[in-house]
Amino acid sequence: MTAITTDLQAQKAAIEDFLETKALESFPGNLFDAVHHIMTLDGKRLRPMMVLMSAQGFGVEQEKAMSAAISIEVFHNFTLVHDDIMDKAKLRRGKITVHEKFGVDKAIVTGDAMLPHAVSLLIQDNNDKAGELLTCFNKMGKEVMEGQQYDMEFENRNDVTVDEYMNMIRLKTSVLFGTACEIGAIIGGANEADKKGLYDFGLYSGLAFQIMDDYLDTFGDENFGKKIGGDILLNKKSFLLVNAMQMANDTQKERIATLFEESNEEKKIREFQELYREMGIPQIALDTMEDLHNKSVNALLSTSIPDENKERIKHLGEVMLRRTK
Amino acid sequence: MTAITTDLQAQKAAIEDFLETKALESFPGNLFDAVHHIMTLDGKRLRPMMVLMSAQGFGVEQEKAMSAAISIEVFHNFTLVHDDIMDKAKLRRGKITVHEKFGVDKAIVTGDAMLPHAVSLLIQDNNDKAGELLTCFNKMGKEVMEGQQYDMEFENRNDVTVDEYMNMIRLKTSVLFGTACEIGAIIGGANEADKKGLYDFGLYSGLAFQIMDDYLDTFGDENFGKKIGGDILLNKKSFLLVNAMQMANDTQKERIATLFEESNEEKKIREFQELYREMGIPQIALDTMEDLHNKSVNALLSTSIPDENKERIKHLGEVMLRRTK
Repeated sequence: MTAITTDLQAQKAAIEDFLETKALESFPGNLFDAVHHIMTLDGKRLRPMMVLMSAQGFGVEQEKAMSAAISIEVFHNFTLVHDDIMDKAKLRRGKITVHEKFGVDKAIVTGDAMLPHAVSLLIQDNNDKAGELLTCFNKMGKEVMEGQQYDMEFENRNDVTVDEYMNMIRLKTSVLFGTACEIGAIIGGANEADKKGLYDFGLYSGLAFQIMDDYLDTFGDENFGKKIGGDILLNKKSFLLVNAMQMANDTQKERIATLFEESNEEKKIREFQELYREMGIPQIALDTMEDLHNKSVNALLSTSIPDENKERIKHLGEVMLRRTK
Repeated sequence: MTAITTDLQAQKAAIEDFLETKALESFPGNLFDAVHHIMTLDGKRLRPMMVLMSAQGFGVEQEKAMSAAISIEVFHNFTLVHDDIMDKAKLRRGKITVHEKFGVDKAIVTGDAMLPHAVSLLIQDNNDKAGELLTCFNKMGKEVMEGQQYDMEFENRNDVTVDEYMNMIRLKTSVLFGTACEIGAIIGGANEADKKGLYDFGLYSGLAFQIMDDYLDTFGDENFGKKIGGDILLNKKSFLLVNAMQMANDTQKERIATLFEESNEEKKIREFQELYREMGIPQIALDTMEDLHNKSVNALLSTSIPDENKERIKHLGEVMLRRTK
């Protein structure tokens, strides 16, 4: 795996080099500081990597797919800028958010300019495939917003089902991974079956990724990354909470309702963790992730790309689930 | 002119029919109420008309250019939704604004979904020209945001020059009219000179349109439309104010500074009107509009489209400046 890891690191470096040099060249000058701020926060760059790896799976040179890869990262960061406004978040990856640093108005406008910029980058080096690239990009763009709206609506509902939750994260998070893979495949001139196989790989990986995110927010190792318990303190409709609420008997429902109001933060986190463990929720999360991971791998294996490239893409899926580095 | 007027009315009706039936078909269901609200406010539909008329100038059937025309209207309305948030506006065309009716968060997300939707509509019936259509659309999209950011920055500056103001309205308002015309020309398969001629027609018309808007805000007839003096009460850097500030002698500068702080609204409006008249500002506005209108007509006349179509497009430019109906 060492060769693949080195390869991933080189790819991340190439992405970040492009971001610093060419990616923002034609961005409006009076919004540059804001877009540069969000685009150069430390990130894993998983989505552009998916574009590059998918394209490379079909023999495309990295350079030919780079601006499309960056397009997906610009789109992703545009959603972060606007989401942080809606969440009133002060920090993102340990750094000040765009709206806190530059004001809400400038953050709205910067995000608004990032979207046409992403579209420009998407087709820049693949103008002959503009129609097909745009069709899947636009569909994805609308789905992400639909998912964001569901996520916000869920805040005021206590009857969100697991199916509704899965649909929400499919829209809000996963279709972007699916589309990243599909775009790479389109640039690579893939056939319909391969495009669908790669889309599904990205989609299932994205679903597993989001559930892992929810799982680690409550059961993660604090040394490993972000603080534990954020979702619990916000009564956020995470995978864990939605499953718990759907399965709960009357006594458990009452405990949840009481915990929603609990003001002692440490107690609230601890008792939610206990309740989840009693109900077997962590295992449900792990089983669901395993199932989704298997589906993603099967979708990938179904494609006609060479085995060596499959290994690299599969590895990226494992990095997403923090099974490896 | 009666035939042209009837023709314009029929075109507006066709645009509004398409908006009610097909335009929002694939829009996210949970954001439909918000997008429908903004898209069906009573409007003049000048921008989509420009697309249709330009395309028709090259013999394109209305139907073939309709979704691209609506794309421009969707883009325009997306900017209105977000601008109203930034301006904290409660009303738009006499109706409640999207963020007042549905909340700021939903208004942000709805706007965000309108942009990929606009891109979809733009290429839907002209996929073979997707690359060229998108190149001019994306450039415009970024310019509009650049202009919006300048407009916001001007609020905190008292040294805005007339040149800076003209550049701001070029970006914020006029390039959208230019692009609307250019998109019609692209769909019509126009040559480079004709595309540029139509773009310039739209651009100059848009500049004149914005100056007319500023002029009427201070010197308009209240019976004719909106309330007089809104810009004055906000100390807004309008065409009138920017010209006055640039020309003012020391005494006039002091009067302006005093009037900025004036709390009696009626007095503030009346005294600003008097000052502007003393300084000859209304005439400067009218002369500038005349000059821009002439430039727009010359650009239109330079194109190779048939005279009859030129007449219709010229008439639309005159409707924009309220010279006729």
